[in-house]
Amino acid sequence: MTMDSPLSVGMLLFEGATQLDLTGPYEVLSRMPNTRVSLLASTMKPVRSEWGLTITPDVALSEAPQLDVLCVPGGWGVNALLTDERLLDFLRAQGEGARYVTSVCSGALVLGAAGLLRGYRATTHWMSLDLLTLFGATPVAERVVRDRNRITGAGVTAGIDFSLVLAAELFGVPVAQAIQLAIEYEPSPPFDSGSPRTAPENVREAVSRAGASSLAQRRAIIDGIVRRQT
Amino acid sequence: MTMDSPLSVGMLLFEGATQLDLTGPYEVLSRMPNTRVSLLASTMKPVRSEWGLTITPDVALSEAPQLDVLCVPGGWGVNALLTDERLLDFLRAQGEGARYVTSVCSGALVLGAAGLLRGYRATTHWMSLDLLTLFGATPVAERVVRDRNRITGAGVTAGIDFSLVLAAELFGVPVAQAIQLAIEYEPSPPFDSGSPRTAPENVREAVSRAGASSLAQRRAIIDGIVRRQT
Repeated sequence: MTMDSPLSVGMLLFEGATQLDLTGPYEVLSRMPNTRVSLLASTMKPVRSEWGLTITPDVALSEAPQLDVLCVPGGWGVNALLTDERLLDFLRAQGEGARYVTSVCSGALVLGAAGLLRGYRATTHWMSLDLLTLFGATPVAERVVRDRNRITGAGVTAGIDFSLVLAAELFGVPVAQAIQLAIEYEPSPPFDSGSPRTAPENVREAVSRAGASSLAQRRAIIDGIVRRQT
Repeated sequence: MTMDSPLSVGMLLFEGATQLDLTGPYEVLSRMPNTRVSLLASTMKPVRSEWGLTITPDVALSEAPQLDVLCVPGGWGVNALLTDERLLDFLRAQGEGARYVTSVCSGALVLGAAGLLRGYRATTHWMSLDLLTLFGATPVAERVVRDRNRITGAGVTAGIDFSLVLAAELFGVPVAQAIQLAIEYEPSPPFDSGSPRTAPENVREAVSRAGASSLAQRRAIIDGIVRRQT
């Protein structure tokens, strides 16, 4: 990046992404000065996220320039990406040149599958946290985890905290504070149920049950990857 | 709504919307049981939000059925809606039949322009809060404000808190808590700059300066509406 060219942030967009993993950081990062945030997808067709919201990509993977910041959001759609060699090759190539390699939620597993978290501390959605070890990463149950130029956020809404940390890193604290004020980010959750540590047991069980089959599929895919590597 | 038909939530989508006003609540509300969240727009063309993210609508205004929940997000694009009589007629008609009439951020001003907040307590983005009085509403500087069947959220990220309150109202606290856990909503802002009360003065001044011309335009439009009504 020269002084004049805009900072290039690329966020991966894919079928079955959790849209708030992407849209939270997008809202923050696109307000940074002299920054272009692009949504990268395998084709230019509008992409349907996990619960239906449909977003138009900006750039096809094959056309993407070297990014300054690479960011991979999560969602159950991640499961299909873990063995997508074309995508993983793209991420490896970008990961070599990017200033920051980042993820939100289970997007960390895609970075892991590309080998980009081996030897790094990282975080992801609480339901998938232990899976990081299979990719040689050290799981850390924190909201935002930084290790050298890897910055990973925990589940879904952690993307907002993650992106404010990144904005401060790139442009300084006052810029991040101004974005925080513009988006009135003074959160006030009506319940104390945002973490498996604090949620009532019956709520934690209900959420675990609802995700069990997708999580089992995810684990089986990753086990398969690890077996083929050894 | 019968026991069997899904709860119908309609969120307004328009050029220049702040996408996180919409995508935050969308992530929460679309996870409610037996619920359909639809994005309503004047045409079916993909809609570009304030900072570029482009979203595909689900239903044209002219085709929308009576909604159970009406939700209007905000953004500087609101300015063009305040005098859009076709849209305001749509909102008035929906507002009569909806169980809940809601907004996030400056979406409250659109409800106000449609006459739907006259005599109600309401909130909106801190920069626009005083404008609510021009529509006969009582501004309240709180994160989520409920008055009878009107529920309004403050700026941008308040939409997440707002939608968890709404989910609890519609489906009970355990359902809202499960959604909060699934989206790991245990926020941890890296700075204490999310409100004009807490932000450093230079940050508050920078944000006010950046929004000054759009806010002046907004005020002039609303003054014009009020003059024509008296």
